[in-house]
Amino acid sequence: MTNQDLAGVEDPLRFEYCFPGSEKIQREVEHDGETLRIPVRRIHVSGEPGHIDLDDTSGPEDIDVTKGLAPLRERWVAARASEENQSQMHFARRGIVTPEMAFAAAREGMEPEFVRAELAAGRAVLPANIKHPEVEPMVIGRAFRVKINSNIGNSAVSSSIEEEVDKLRWSTRWGADTVMDLSTGPDIHETRGRIIRNSPVPIGTVPIYQALEKVNGVPEDLTLEAYIETLVEQAEQGVDYFTIHAGVLLRYVPLTANRITGIVSRGGSIMAKWCLTHHKENFLYTGFEEICKVMKKYDVTFSLGDGLRPGCLADANDEAQFGELETLGELTEIAWRHDIQVMIEGPGHVPLDKIQENMDRELAACHEAPFYTLGPLVTDVAPGYDHITSAIGAANIGAMGTAMLCYVTPKEHLGLPNRQDVKDGVIAYRIAAHAADVAKGHPRAREWDDAMSRARFEFRWEDQFNLSMDPITAREYHDETLPAPAAKTAHFCSMCGPHFCSMKISEDVRKMAAEQGISEEEAVQEGMQKKSEEFAASGGKLYTEVRSSDA
Amino acid sequence: MTNQDLAGVEDPLRFEYCFPGSEKIQREVEHDGETLRIPVRRIHVSGEPGHIDLDDTSGPEDIDVTKGLAPLRERWVAARASEENQSQMHFARRGIVTPEMAFAAAREGMEPEFVRAELAAGRAVLPANIKHPEVEPMVIGRAFRVKINSNIGNSAVSSSIEEEVDKLRWSTRWGADTVMDLSTGPDIHETRGRIIRNSPVPIGTVPIYQALEKVNGVPEDLTLEAYIETLVEQAEQGVDYFTIHAGVLLRYVPLTANRITGIVSRGGSIMAKWCLTHHKENFLYTGFEEICKVMKKYDVTFSLGDGLRPGCLADANDEAQFGELETLGELTEIAWRHDIQVMIEGPGHVPLDKIQENMDRELAACHEAPFYTLGPLVTDVAPGYDHITSAIGAANIGAMGTAMLCYVTPKEHLGLPNRQDVKDGVIAYRIAAHAADVAKGHPRAREWDDAMSRARFEFRWEDQFNLSMDPITAREYHDETLPAPAAKTAHFCSMCGPHFCSMKISEDVRKMAAEQGISEEEAVQEGMQKKSEEFAASGGKLYTEVRSSDA
Repeated sequence: MTNQDLAGVEDPLRFEYCFPGSEKIQREVEHDGETLRIPVRRIHVSGEPGHIDLDDTSGPEDIDVTKGLAPLRERWVAARASEENQSQMHFARRGIVTPEMAFAAAREGMEPEFVRAELAAGRAVLPANIKHPEVEPMVIGRAFRVKINSNIGNSAVSSSIEEEVDKLRWSTRWGADTVMDLSTGPDIHETRGRIIRNSPVPIGTVPIYQALEKVNGVPEDLTLEAYIETLVEQAEQGVDYFTIHAGVLLRYVPLTANRITGIVSRGGSIMAKWCLTHHKENFLYTGFEEICKVMKKYDVTFSLGDGLRPGCLADANDEAQFGELETLGELTEIAWRHDIQVMIEGPGHVPLDKIQENMDRELAACHEAPFYTLGPLVTDVAPGYDHITSAIGAANIGAMGTAMLCYVTPKEHLGLPNRQDVKDGVIAYRIAAHAADVAKGHPRAREWDDAMSRARFEFRWEDQFNLSMDPITAREYHDETLPAPAAKTAHFCSMCGPHFCSMKISEDVRKMAAEQGISEEEAVQEGMQKKSEEFAASGGKLYTEVRSSDA
Repeated sequence: MTNQDLAGVEDPLRFEYCFPGSEKIQREVEHDGETLRIPVRRIHVSGEPGHIDLDDTSGPEDIDVTKGLAPLRERWVAARASEENQSQMHFARRGIVTPEMAFAAAREGMEPEFVRAELAAGRAVLPANIKHPEVEPMVIGRAFRVKINSNIGNSAVSSSIEEEVDKLRWSTRWGADTVMDLSTGPDIHETRGRIIRNSPVPIGTVPIYQALEKVNGVPEDLTLEAYIETLVEQAEQGVDYFTIHAGVLLRYVPLTANRITGIVSRGGSIMAKWCLTHHKENFLYTGFEEICKVMKKYDVTFSLGDGLRPGCLADANDEAQFGELETLGELTEIAWRHDIQVMIEGPGHVPLDKIQENMDRELAACHEAPFYTLGPLVTDVAPGYDHITSAIGAANIGAMGTAMLCYVTPKEHLGLPNRQDVKDGVIAYRIAAHAADVAKGHPRAREWDDAMSRARFEFRWEDQFNLSMDPITAREYHDETLPAPAAKTAHFCSMCGPHFCSMKISEDVRKMAAEQGISEEEAVQEGMQKKSEEFAASGGKLYTEVRSSDA
């Protein structure tokens, strides 16, 4: 669906428009005397297996943006109001399976007790600020489905609050599991509030951006107090996870001087500047215990930022990057002493052969806390295609155990993403995450591929479109060559043409074997012979067109 | 560059249009008293390192399609006319470094003797039919730059011969290293001839398609005689490599009966049908020695086809696929006894965790003959995006040692690719191949990335565009947000805005260190302080816009 196409569509956000043949359903799961309603996108399939259920992160369909979503978790949070530490990790470590854990477990098709155990061990996080009751609980960890994050945020050409909510919904429509709001500027508070009230997915932020505005944009004027004031303000609104660059230590900064691209994280360079100006240790590091107090009160999850991540292949896996990673591990231990949930941010730009070391070191240094990476991009030379360069790295690091992948759009390094770029980024990352799920052997991942392959073999074209990650594009591409409605039920496609198809022969062979109970080999022979007689009788040629890559 | 954009461009094929800032040059290399002119695309860079040289596969710029290219190899071939076996492997094994080997070595930046040794060992091929003197010699093997293949071929909506030559040039313009002509139909002979006469890159075909037409499209009427007649016809025209499905043995066919997608290779299913109809062994297998006679006379390279490759994740790495691979290894040994060059075709659809086994088994079973794979796609669920699903697999298997990657376009499984699809496919595969080159540590691969990273750090925007794999798209995306000419020299971009940039600070710090000879740490501090004073003086805010994924 291109932007041009969108012009003629009344509401391109509509579920029915994006996913024909799919239905939003709520699967009911009992937990502790209560019925949990798990959001599912059900794709109806005319052949085997009847339907495919996918996790649905897009929330309720018809919403009033000014009112926000229903507060799903309100009673669950209220029931725990007496607790000083509100963290899901805190409850998990005390052996309590919260409704949030049961909800997230049902989405994964796993046992609630397993989710609890992973949270207790710190191998997973369940980002759900008590002030964000609208969130539909989900779990991020390497035992679970690989998640993806998309970024939104207003820009200089300032967009309206409605537009920001629309961007949120556009991201989750295509499958974003969390969204980071990177907005800045005068309306930052109101924009964030409106996004959170309308978000069924966890919302992350980088609080240093707003803290900096509080000190008029001068990094050296930043203080722990101003920063914590910002954390409280955002936590009160319901932000579910904070990127905090507490690992950028004074002694690491000079290690970046000989890099080709120096420091490329904005948060990282702000803190580097603060450290060097004052010649003091990073106040986010020295004040970490103070920060923990806010985090556990609201159950905000730490996303420990990699402020010294590499900005190009040449800088990957260097001393600065891995030095900071060690410090993030140290901070993880401190957070865990408070039962606060932690994930670890990772790069960035890394050549294919150096990705495994990133995963190995993260698991070792950070005690198996979930890894959350940006790509990584596996080459620097393809701006305009960085959703692809980074999806390659993301699929790999996902298969190795990274729990969440932050998307990259085609505009990365060049400009601000538009609607089409956001969709392209989300879909490239859904591909990477799903490929990783299949490789990891997630129990339900391959069902989807197999349903598609069956539909393909049986020439169920409507099923093929409906099962696609992007049904509209799949149908549009098919119809460019064969627009007639009859082609949707024909047992051929434009690639090999109507007169010959290897899949068709194999299909007939199999049917005969089943009907006649003959051996596979006999069946194959008989089937082939019959088919050959048919073809001989029709006098037709075997094929008329060429399949693009079927050599 | 979208199709729409192309409408207004006089000749979108022009080198100058596609690669502003680049120059086609010929690097002169002496070999055996002769000057070889090696085609190079030189990207001029205003900063370090001055320029980047890339292999240029697109041939001479101004050509007369009716006359064809100059016969570069004419004298080299003539000088060897007395030899019965014309294969480059034959000469390599006798210790002879041919001009073709020297030419290919210069393209890789390697010693001619190394190319000779790799060819002699069968670890590389140099596809160059003696009847295709226009080809600019290149080498395919895992010690060399990873190559990519693109497919062309007329379709039912029959295109003109001129259009086919245009498709060839469009593919090589964006970086295809070889092209397979999959044309069928009445003009097949003339079309192929015209393509070869105008092709600076090796041309491959699947001769079974034309052989089948000679027997009126009835597979069971195929004979070795009709097939060899086709081989001779095509070899005489100058085809450089033939896909031959000689490994589809009778006993393997029943192993595909329980697959989800059966046999998906057209050549494979044609041969399966022949075997089963006659209940005889594949005539390409029993007649392999006869086929070898043609191959060595013209120096046509075997591309042993994987007729039983998996058509979906579920069928990957099964008995049928690996059974055939063993047979391809056996055929490799026979071909090598005749000093005939061989590469081995591979899948297809393979989950990420099963790719390594494909590479390992191919190297073992086929004695390190070069592997040439189609993707593989790492998921089945994203039709419309299969250039991405397969580039993920291709980058991985390339990094593991696959020598050539056959591209997949976004239209795969849906329809016939148009011009934009071909470009998207080629670029996705250039990305995969380059990422693999970097991962393998090809001596010159990373230079390009580092040149881009330096340009990025120093805000040399024109250099960034010119160094991009697709300069037009990079510039277009940048200009969507910042169209003014001044933005091309500005030390900021639309992502972080004009008032703050982490890269800018790091840059200033480094300059000071160099000028003042102070220690890195001191330099960093001093630089930061100065910068902070500047900012304080300007009273400006640090940034006004948000960078899409720079959390």
